[in-house]
Amino acid sequence: MRVIPTADAMRAWSLLEKREGRRVGFVPTMGYLHEGHLSLVRLARQRCESVVVSLFVNPTQFLPGEDFAAYPRNFGRDRDMCRDAGVDVLFHPAADEMYAADHSVIVDEQRLSAGLCGASRPGHFRGVLTVVAKLFHIVLPDVAVFGQKDAQQARLIQRMVRDLQFPVEILVGPIVREADGLAMSSRNKYLSPAERREALCLRRALDRVEALFAAGERDAARLRAAMMEIFDGTPSARVDYAAIVDDTTLEPLAEVNRRALVALAVRIGTTRLLDNTVLPA
Amino acid sequence: MRVIPTADAMRAWSLLEKREGRRVGFVPTMGYLHEGHLSLVRLARQRCESVVVSLFVNPTQFLPGEDFAAYPRNFGRDRDMCRDAGVDVLFHPAADEMYAADHSVIVDEQRLSAGLCGASRPGHFRGVLTVVAKLFHIVLPDVAVFGQKDAQQARLIQRMVRDLQFPVEILVGPIVREADGLAMSSRNKYLSPAERREALCLRRALDRVEALFAAGERDAARLRAAMMEIFDGTPSARVDYAAIVDDTTLEPLAEVNRRALVALAVRIGTTRLLDNTVLPA
Repeated sequence: MRVIPTADAMRAWSLLEKREGRRVGFVPTMGYLHEGHLSLVRLARQRCESVVVSLFVNPTQFLPGEDFAAYPRNFGRDRDMCRDAGVDVLFHPAADEMYAADHSVIVDEQRLSAGLCGASRPGHFRGVLTVVAKLFHIVLPDVAVFGQKDAQQARLIQRMVRDLQFPVEILVGPIVREADGLAMSSRNKYLSPAERREALCLRRALDRVEALFAAGERDAARLRAAMMEIFDGTPSARVDYAAIVDDTTLEPLAEVNRRALVALAVRIGTTRLLDNTVLPA
Repeated sequence: MRVIPTADAMRAWSLLEKREGRRVGFVPTMGYLHEGHLSLVRLARQRCESVVVSLFVNPTQFLPGEDFAAYPRNFGRDRDMCRDAGVDVLFHPAADEMYAADHSVIVDEQRLSAGLCGASRPGHFRGVLTVVAKLFHIVLPDVAVFGQKDAQQARLIQRMVRDLQFPVEILVGPIVREADGLAMSSRNKYLSPAERREALCLRRALDRVEALFAAGERDAARLRAAMMEIFDGTPSARVDYAAIVDDTTLEPLAEVNRRALVALAVRIGTTRLLDNTVLPA
């Protein structure tokens, strides 16, 4: 496995791969990898002869006061995990390789990004879309893979690729969970043992909604109330949002009469956790 | 010469050219071509084995009340001029090929776009950058050529390519003028015969600044005043801006102590004309 630190060298490598007829698959990450990331690497590998993982904690997608400085980092461990997973290139740029001091061009989205995490974290998705656009221009992937755990992000990337007509195919890999049901996340390491137990309330709330939906319930307010009951019974939980939205437009639904995304952002102590499930049409 | 109307066919053509080792040069236009555009085609041809011209009057770069509907169009004439100039492909998409009905992703710039035309036409450059990003993803050029006549636009495109790390080299071709000095523009056709004569005030103002600069004048206020005298003596002229700015950052200069752009936007009757010159460092 090669570790490439510069944009020029990364692009040169990808161009050579493509010239030799190998498809390039790409998994962008902020590092501190877990089995969720590795499942995306395997998806990329199924479709492409070459696989690139990027590791870059992107400053522009953190808001002032958020955990940019504290975000967990462990380069040696990430590198070893990528190598063991058969990754061909780990792209690991320095911050000034990605952003000039007088950087002034952004990519933004004006509709799907308004609600959910976009409402709680204004400017977050602008940072995400801008860095992903840059990474796509550096890595030049044929296929890029994102996780369903960050469902709104995945929908926004798909929208960006459609609207700006990037020559990239987007795949979305399913959520990977711990044995007890907690969605894997680099931020789970922030949880104390007690919080780790209470964090299961997210999965339990989604289980409850899925069961009610299976039993025929279609009223979004009642489905949502059933989730809130679980959070209200969890001392350390503070709900940022518990939303039932159209899975494509991310607009709130009153009735689940089409494919719906049930999306959660819940703080357990000071740690903000995401989880979601899709209710079929 | 091929005329290609769809993004998919355009991209397939470019990928084939590149696979066969031919560099793709690209000149994006809004049509109603003149010798200025053709000079950019020749620049592209000098550097590339294949040349693509796009012809698309981009609705998102016109503000409400501007001349989108009236913008001059003559497809047959443009097609013939491209063929005669040795263009390989004329990319001529329909509006719905470029913008989905629920299009919601934009590219914007937050510094260089604040002044000059960006101040007079808020949202204009967002439309320009967004459509150029799309065109780059469709045409996949190695080299793209823009005209110095739209100097702020050219600087913004260069900034976008740098900041979003597009794998495209940008060339800027010099202003092409009519025999009497008027900068060529598709909008010159709006001028009445009397206005056409008065439109020479832009070139005369730039000549005056160049002469004063050659004689040692470095004070921007005095250089600007000399230009304003000419416009004040031109009955149909209304100055939108007459600015002396840093040629890279586009920030106003008090003293011309580095490479400077002298940029004009002047209405002659209802027609807004641009012109500029660069004062060397």
